[in-house]
Amino acid sequence: MEKKILLTDCPDAKGLIAKITNICFKHQLNITKNDEFVDREQGRFFMRTALEGNFNDATLLGDLDMALPQGAERRLVASGRKRLVLMVTREPHCLGDILMKCYAGALDVEIAAVIGNHPDLGALVEKFGIPFHHLSAEGVQRQQHEEQVIQLVDSYSPDYLILAKYMRVLTPGFVAQYRGRIINIHHSFLPAFIGAKPYQQAFERGVKIIGATAHFVTDDLDEGPIIEQDVIHVDHAYSADGMAAAGRDVEKSVLSRALQLVLQERVFIHGNKTVVFK
Amino acid sequence: MEKKILLTDCPDAKGLIAKITNICFKHQLNITKNDEFVDREQGRFFMRTALEGNFNDATLLGDLDMALPQGAERRLVASGRKRLVLMVTREPHCLGDILMKCYAGALDVEIAAVIGNHPDLGALVEKFGIPFHHLSAEGVQRQQHEEQVIQLVDSYSPDYLILAKYMRVLTPGFVAQYRGRIINIHHSFLPAFIGAKPYQQAFERGVKIIGATAHFVTDDLDEGPIIEQDVIHVDHAYSADGMAAAGRDVEKSVLSRALQLVLQERVFIHGNKTVVFK
Amino acid sequence: MEKKILLTDCPDAKGLIAKITNICFKHQLNITKNDEFVDREQGRFFMRTALEGNFNDATLLGDLDMALPQGAERRLVASGRKRLVLMVTREPHCLGDILMKCYAGALDVEIAAVIGNHPDLGALVEKFGIPFHHLSAEGVQRQQHEEQVIQLVDSYSPDYLILAKYMRVLTPGFVAQYRGRIINIHHSFLPAFIGAKPYQQAFERGVKIIGATAHFVTDDLDEGPIIEQDVIHVDHAYSADGMAAAGRDVEKSVLSRALQLVLQERVFIHGNKTVVFK
Amino acid sequence: MEKKILLTDCPDAKGLIAKITNICFKHQLNITKNDEFVDREQGRFFMRTALEGNFNDATLLGDLDMALPQGAERRLVASGRKRLVLMVTREPHCLGDILMKCYAGALDVEIAAVIGNHPDLGALVEKFGIPFHHLSAEGVQRQQHEEQVIQLVDSYSPDYLILAKYMRVLTPGFVAQYRGRIINIHHSFLPAFIGAKPYQQAFERGVKIIGATAHFVTDDLDEGPIIEQDVIHVDHAYSADGMAAAGRDVEKSVLSRALQLVLQERVFIHGNKTVVFK
Repeated sequence: MEKKILLTDCPDAKGLIAKITNICFKHQLNITKNDEFVDREQGRFFMRTALEGNFNDATLLGDLDMALPQGAERRLVASGRKRLVLMVTREPHCLGDILMKCYAGALDVEIAAVIGNHPDLGALVEKFGIPFHHLSAEGVQRQQHEEQVIQLVDSYSPDYLILAKYMRVLTPGFVAQYRGRIINIHHSFLPAFIGAKPYQQAFERGVKIIGATAHFVTDDLDEGPIIEQDVIHVDHAYSADGMAAAGRDVEKSVLSRALQLVLQERVFIHGNKTVVFK
Repeated sequence: MEKKILLTDCPDAKGLIAKITNICFKHQLNITKNDEFVDREQGRFFMRTALEGNFNDATLLGDLDMALPQGAERRLVASGRKRLVLMVTREPHCLGDILMKCYAGALDVEIAAVIGNHPDLGALVEKFGIPFHHLSAEGVQRQQHEEQVIQLVDSYSPDYLILAKYMRVLTPGFVAQYRGRIINIHHSFLPAFIGAKPYQQAFERGVKIIGATAHFVTDDLDEGPIIEQDVIHVDHAYSADGMAAAGRDVEKSVLSRALQLVLQERVFIHGNKTVVFK
Repeated sequence: MEKKILLTDCPDAKGLIAKITNICFKHQLNITKNDEFVDREQGRFFMRTALEGNFNDATLLGDLDMALPQGAERRLVASGRKRLVLMVTREPHCLGDILMKCYAGALDVEIAAVIGNHPDLGALVEKFGIPFHHLSAEGVQRQQHEEQVIQLVDSYSPDYLILAKYMRVLTPGFVAQYRGRIINIHHSFLPAFIGAKPYQQAFERGVKIIGATAHFVTDDLDEGPIIEQDVIHVDHAYSADGMAAAGRDVEKSVLSRALQLVLQERVFIHGNKTVVFK
Repeated sequence: MEKKILLTDCPDAKGLIAKITNICFKHQLNITKNDEFVDREQGRFFMRTALEGNFNDATLLGDLDMALPQGAERRLVASGRKRLVLMVTREPHCLGDILMKCYAGALDVEIAAVIGNHPDLGALVEKFGIPFHHLSAEGVQRQQHEEQVIQLVDSYSPDYLILAKYMRVLTPGFVAQYRGRIINIHHSFLPAFIGAKPYQQAFERGVKIIGATAHFVTDDLDEGPIIEQDVIHVDHAYSADGMAAAGRDVEKSVLSRALQLVLQERVFIHGNKTVVFK
């Protein structure tokens, strides 16, 4: 008995749930979990259907294509392991949490490689038997550096590229290579404190909460579709550095949760937003 | 165009989602939100289907009865206003929050009456033009008092009976009259601190969180199906009274949220647990 | 035995805690709770000292003035009831929570009056025997309207002016009349979503948290010192209106908590920030 | 300039803050943070004073001893690194979080060794260059096993013994060796679900929150002084295993926070409770 996930994203129409679940039933597939959402304003339908049974992918998808409205996107995903490439700079906490969760089997994913624009995290990565590549951006033109990164990333054919505190801005050219497949952790509760030094900004504003945001990367810095956010409470006694230290736990936990959601095929990108079936 | 909610609770079987949604489609009803859950261990299926359209209740339910397995329960509920009777003792915070939410239109419900075993909250209730009845339990036998309460409650034919800090234990005889229709707020994160004086117990144990639990009332004190729970953080500086004061906001918010969930037909009772579709 | 709170705000210097607590001891005052904070960057010292005993205010303050550095501010506050004027527009939830908490004795404060720029909330306020004044801003020049408000507010001599969802922007001229004494609730986790329609902005950005911020009002809209903030989680299924409905509970709770902190003399304004001793 | 922390725990008396801070001032020590708490019911005073300056420990403590009431305990602690021995069974998440935090410098502590009653976590520990000892409890008498553990622990002279998901109950004899120095993480929000399989218990009770509790170990299982607690929300869709998986993040974060609080000398044991200055 196999397990697969059917993801449907199409213009809204009457009877879609009935049609899709009927086709699954006809194929003798058991639905173990079904989630749907209709954006009525935009007339768009999203459904995630977790299925069990013996799959004939081609006929199943063929039947769906006949039933679904024009402009429908549908995918049938085997719940196999995805491959990641992680990009980092110097801070180990997000990287460390992902490494440890993979080691413990709590994230079912293969970390193909880690790329750092600084060498600092190489020793940690190598403890886990994972290749680490140091591609310095110093003294290299931005475009040339990104081309090196792209070449290296592509050599691993990852499903997703995870920016686990990668502290460089990516150009539209880079982002275009991996549309909808780059996930970043930003160390603020976006849209507050976009850009550099969010904890310093938070300290200066005197906020009573700090947070973190995991989002898909688009051309607009810190403006991509948000997957997951969380906050913790702080007070006047926190320096900017104290906020940064306290924020690390929420950063790593938000990134890990976002990653888990994406890996379990729970996240649809919908314009500049996400639909997330938890 | 009407709106109704179809609630299905039956033994699990293959194709249930397909069958039910198909019947809805056949009746030209639009599904605006569908939630389902299968308890695989116990082989039980739960589904809440929010529908829009023109309803022929008899034929719809007839079609469902033919499609659903033996032992199925299904209800088609018009999303009209429910009627409540509230029972209180002396503390105004939960009562006050419900009164204010109704006044503001945030809870779409009719409060038919409030019954207090003390007279203290009469003045507050009457500000809102709602009948208040003082039924003292002093100098009356427990059974006799409960019979008076039952008679009064029944004169209002409420859908639910809400114990908004009603500080008396109800007998099995009373509970049997309103099975699955009495909701209580207990001032601890159950199952911790069952019984009397939970804040005093929490103080003595030195816990770092306190909380509240809204649950259906069954014969076993504080053991009924839990609908909603939440906590807040406390520390060594809180006295038992300080915990009680701090806990009032979480009590009122947990009870209001539980009530909202029940009123929106989002809660199934499933043995000694609940299935809650948020 | 009286209870008072000593608030000290002065340039930092060695031995301040020793000096101040010594003077209290010399006056045979018992310290029941002491909190202090040093902003080392700015060299500023803040201390809140809760005292019990028999007070000779003049000699106590005289002794303190001799011991404290130049530029020190110190206040000895009897823990008596403060007077509030509330300003509202149409939404009842923040007003209602404050009214109910006062009624229940959970906020030890006198609500002298409520002023609305719309008449809608008059009936609610009057249930509680509190004067309500409708001062419409329609067809009146902004300055003239504010002068009417000031005149009315001043006739009540309140300690604080609480904007409990007052949906008009106040001019610098108005704010100058009540510097450090106007508290507003903004329906977002500032600095995100400054200005109008924060829930609409939050909906459009696709955030996964929404929140509320209580702050002192200064000339810069939504930029004053933050007293308290909190958030709740939302998802793709929330419309802007749904976010607004869900946000009301966090708005009212954040405003009530901020108000409680201010009333208990736990809040220092420190430039554009606050020091809050919880 | 050195930094030390003065911890005072004594019968309450008038003027204690003044006396202690005065002595510090006389010694030309700067107080960078002071926290105190009086348990008025039990007449006990607790103070944590963070100091900077040049210390003459003997004369400082001598001066304090003359000023403090009979029965006072006071300690002057250099803010140096503490030594830990960790005890584990099979689950890596709490261990992994502590290892990673130490590696990243986020926990300033020396992990002297890790002892496992199963061999599973040896490979992980050794990645970080820390000794791992497998002391199986199989086929050994309980007392004999504990004697082996004690001998091994003592060979490392740790300040604290951390039970990072050590799944065996310790005897009073063992606990007596390390009174107030053993910290355990229990996978429930105590006092709910004491004993074995708390997630299974939580699943069966149908709770809507699960949590974790870090506490000092005493002779009474899961009854020791609580240091830190937190919870997460769950729903009907979580199996007992799903709860366990979701709970791991809160377990590791509660244990790490408790450990940080203890290492920073913020925790007093007070009977069966703690006083924690955050």
